[in-house]
Amino acid sequence: MSLALGVLISGRGSNLVAILDAIDRGSLDATLKVVASNKPNAAGLERAKERGLPTVYLDPKPFAQKPKPREAYDLAMGALLQQHGVEYVALAGYMRIVTPVLIQMYPSKIFNIHPSLLPAFPGLDAQRQALEWGAKVSGCTVHLVTEGVDEGPIIVQASVPILEGDTVESLSARILEKEHECYPQALQFMAQKRMYLEGRKVHILS
Amino acid sequence: MSLALGVLISGRGSNLVAILDAIDRGSLDATLKVVASNKPNAAGLERAKERGLPTVYLDPKPFAQKPKPREAYDLAMGALLQQHGVEYVALAGYMRIVTPVLIQMYPSKIFNIHPSLLPAFPGLDAQRQALEWGAKVSGCTVHLVTEGVDEGPIIVQASVPILEGDTVESLSARILEKEHECYPQALQFMAQKRMYLEGRKVHILS
Repeated sequence: MSLALGVLISGRGSNLVAILDAIDRGSLDATLKVVASNKPNAAGLERAKERGLPTVYLDPKPFAQKPKPREAYDLAMGALLQQHGVEYVALAGYMRIVTPVLIQMYPSKIFNIHPSLLPAFPGLDAQRQALEWGAKVSGCTVHLVTEGVDEGPIIVQASVPILEGDTVESLSARILEKEHECYPQALQFMAQKRMYLEGRKVHILS
Repeated sequence: MSLALGVLISGRGSNLVAILDAIDRGSLDATLKVVASNKPNAAGLERAKERGLPTVYLDPKPFAQKPKPREAYDLAMGALLQQHGVEYVALAGYMRIVTPVLIQMYPSKIFNIHPSLLPAFPGLDAQRQALEWGAKVSGCTVHLVTEGVDEGPIIVQASVPILEGDTVESLSARILEKEHECYPQALQFMAQKRMYLEGRKVHILS
């Protein structure tokens, strides 16, 4: 089956591009239905437009007046995704915490990628956290989004060494290379219906 | 320089054997001064005796009556290590929490190995914790012992994949192979005076 995918971004969308490249070369059976952003100038929107893909900027400001701004925003985002026929959602550098409203519209169908080997270094600035802790190995994690931040079931992880003299930038770049491999791979497991959940464990059938 | 090493064990001492093998083949510049155990039947004591090395069983029971039994035991252990000329201590499956008494006798000179990529899965049963969390990558960590359990500065880490169908036993065996490489390597960094501390970061000079 082809995964009807929506991708949410806030910035350059390098993982979006990796997903698009994987679709183009046939290693990910997915159709990108829409790229949505909470930032008008996210460079990833341009990358998507260049490829003729539908893009949407959903401005958070009008929702700020409402009693539950984050939930109201996610309700609108969910409606937008559904209008575009999105069945699975990939967060790719999307700098908002997703509320239960959206998670319940797409239960176990929202993917995220995090630049550490979770459960180590959750939250912001994972690469900096790893360096400050003096870790010698880090990596990236693709997981399903649940209500606990960075706590959802893990689909794929890949490790990278931390080298003497590494900066946040050099480590981030090394991890990003792995992200670009892992994210399409994790989505492909779903597209091929090779993954299933048992509690919080993701089983991958060979 | 040759590292004057004491090794503390409670069980089979497979990391002790890895250390001894590394010394024998010349990849670790260390002299094993004594192997000490808190368990009389630790199989690792036999392994050491077979190689003609001094071994000591230090029985915890007589210390149990004292006001501070763990500290009193560690004071005796520290004295014992010093009598044998030990300058650096390697914990190898030593199933006691080391108190500040011993840490202060050997500041930044006690090594430990843990079967996870710390800070993920500290404490007991790290391999089981990783499996139950559904992690896809784990590994091992050699670190210096500080007063926080499994929180000390990290010298070496190595990753292993977690495979579909893994049990605690199969994962532990895969990690143990890496432990046997990492522990002598970390000790050799100290023997070669190639490592230094900056805060909680361990720098390794090339």
